[in-house]
Amino acid sequence: MECDLSPVMVRDAEMRIRPLARRTPVFTSTSVNRAAGAEVHFKCENLQRGGAFKIRGASNLIMSIPDEDLPRGVVAFSSGNHAQAVAIVADYVHTPATIVMPADAPRGKLEATRNHGARIITYDRHRESREAIAERILKETGATLVPPFDHPLVMAGQGTAALELLEVIPQLDALIAPIGGGGLLAGCATIAKAIDPEIRVFGAEPERANDTYLSLEAGRRVKIPLPDTIADGLRSPEPGSLTFPVLQRHLEAVLLVSEEEIRATVKFLLMRMKVLVEPSGAVAAAAVLHHKLPEGIRSIGVILSGGNVDFEQLTTF
Amino acid sequence: MECDLSPVMVRDAEMRIRPLARRTPVFTSTSVNRAAGAEVHFKCENLQRGGAFKIRGASNLIMSIPDEDLPRGVVAFSSGNHAQAVAIVADYVHTPATIVMPADAPRGKLEATRNHGARIITYDRHRESREAIAERILKETGATLVPPFDHPLVMAGQGTAALELLEVIPQLDALIAPIGGGGLLAGCATIAKAIDPEIRVFGAEPERANDTYLSLEAGRRVKIPLPDTIADGLRSPEPGSLTFPVLQRHLEAVLLVSEEEIRATVKFLLMRMKVLVEPSGAVAAAAVLHHKLPEGIRSIGVILSGGNVDFEQLTTF
Repeated sequence: MECDLSPVMVRDAEMRIRPLARRTPVFTSTSVNRAAGAEVHFKCENLQRGGAFKIRGASNLIMSIPDEDLPRGVVAFSSGNHAQAVAIVADYVHTPATIVMPADAPRGKLEATRNHGARIITYDRHRESREAIAERILKETGATLVPPFDHPLVMAGQGTAALELLEVIPQLDALIAPIGGGGLLAGCATIAKAIDPEIRVFGAEPERANDTYLSLEAGRRVKIPLPDTIADGLRSPEPGSLTFPVLQRHLEAVLLVSEEEIRATVKFLLMRMKVLVEPSGAVAAAAVLHHKLPEGIRSIGVILSGGNVDFEQLTTF
Repeated sequence: MECDLSPVMVRDAEMRIRPLARRTPVFTSTSVNRAAGAEVHFKCENLQRGGAFKIRGASNLIMSIPDEDLPRGVVAFSSGNHAQAVAIVADYVHTPATIVMPADAPRGKLEATRNHGARIITYDRHRESREAIAERILKETGATLVPPFDHPLVMAGQGTAALELLEVIPQLDALIAPIGGGGLLAGCATIAKAIDPEIRVFGAEPERANDTYLSLEAGRRVKIPLPDTIADGLRSPEPGSLTFPVLQRHLEAVLLVSEEEIRATVKFLLMRMKVLVEPSGAVAAAAVLHHKLPEGIRSIGVILSGGNVDFEQLTTF
């Protein structure tokens, strides 16, 4: 199952994930275009099954597990959208899923994951290592680990978001997506550059979680202290060992946005486009709406990567 | 321009409005289906241009005005989505629009309407008659009145929402839409019954704005005191003289929902489907999610009629 990420792997993923991942719609909005000063095409992964793009990568990996290994199950550690995605896919292929989640994860996310039949093991974020816990379970069960980003099949699966977008809107000057661990953008950049070598690819990060920005600047992976940002899905402190070289090859720049710009964008997309995007999912849109792109880009594809946000949090925006 | 509403008029409208009205997406959601106990197909008019279905009827009427009359402009009285729709269409066909709005209309709606270049005349809701004001403007200018619902071309335009829905999902046991003045449902019922005479058609109203419910029971139009409901788009105190006979012919029943059920539905659609629906727009969905339908309906089309709600109001839900 291990091989380098390639455009062909993204195309293979598109076929493999079809029973599970929705072909999400692409939206445009005149008020967004006016505000951005460009033609903006949103790929709405907030409307994806499980409320985020994560099911693309999870299903691509899990549906590639050899039949003889499947009964031993899958393991993931995640506090968020990846956990739910793995639980949904495991449920679909009838394999047991064990999800290692911090005890203080949002109750909604714990419940959503449990509702799909996953076994949940909680741990104390400050005292225990989730890697050690996952390692122990893998040894005991022989299950397959489903990493959140640092795996070629996961990256390839996430890349199908860009593939679908370019199938609908083939002519784009640029593409932009948020960066957490970098799996989404690594997959998207790989297929986008293969389809159109001229396309300009950007990443977006919160100013407070600028690990990939710093890493690209330094020319090597830089680890930052655990980021404190409202974009809870982008809190990984460093890019992945597999995602980073891909990003390094394809990215023109990483654009940074403030917490206030993220909040304003969530509100803007909700009020003007009538869609709910979570803070992490709105970071690329925030960069576009707040004019962080270089001049001369007339059309851009923006991945809205997820929509899972608590109502209570939303009301504070 | 005056003739009885017919299915052919809805089909004609579909061609006429195409430059302006979006072909909105149809959404399904596994969590909605589970909660409703049926297969629910949402026609997302909250994602329509102007944030509501109203542009369908407004554009069908305005684009039918003879060329020689167009320069004299159009007039509408509305505090809400109809005002904005008329302003957008008038702007598109380069005819002056005068909108008569209550002075205490939400500032956002006043501004949105003004932004499309319409002239706004405000009036005191408690002292002045908007009909008298509109009448005076019509006499002075020779403009064409665009009524919010009680006109065959307006009803036919609104019916295109159901036509598009049935083009995507041809097999439906039932169709349901909210009732304000009844224009949306009159148009939708007319085309739906023509396409599939077996389809069961329902209306939905707030318990507090049950004028059509009472009218159907009485067998004649009943006027109620000005309704006080969170569904501000459904506050018309009686069905229209043209819409009512159509509703009488086609409707199996009007289902009533409480204010609390409307609020809960807005929140449910936002959190689970990630789309923003205004209270008026969620009334039909509320009836389905709260099991007001008769038993035995396995698939239903639901019109989500609009998405214009203030963020401040939303946070109180």
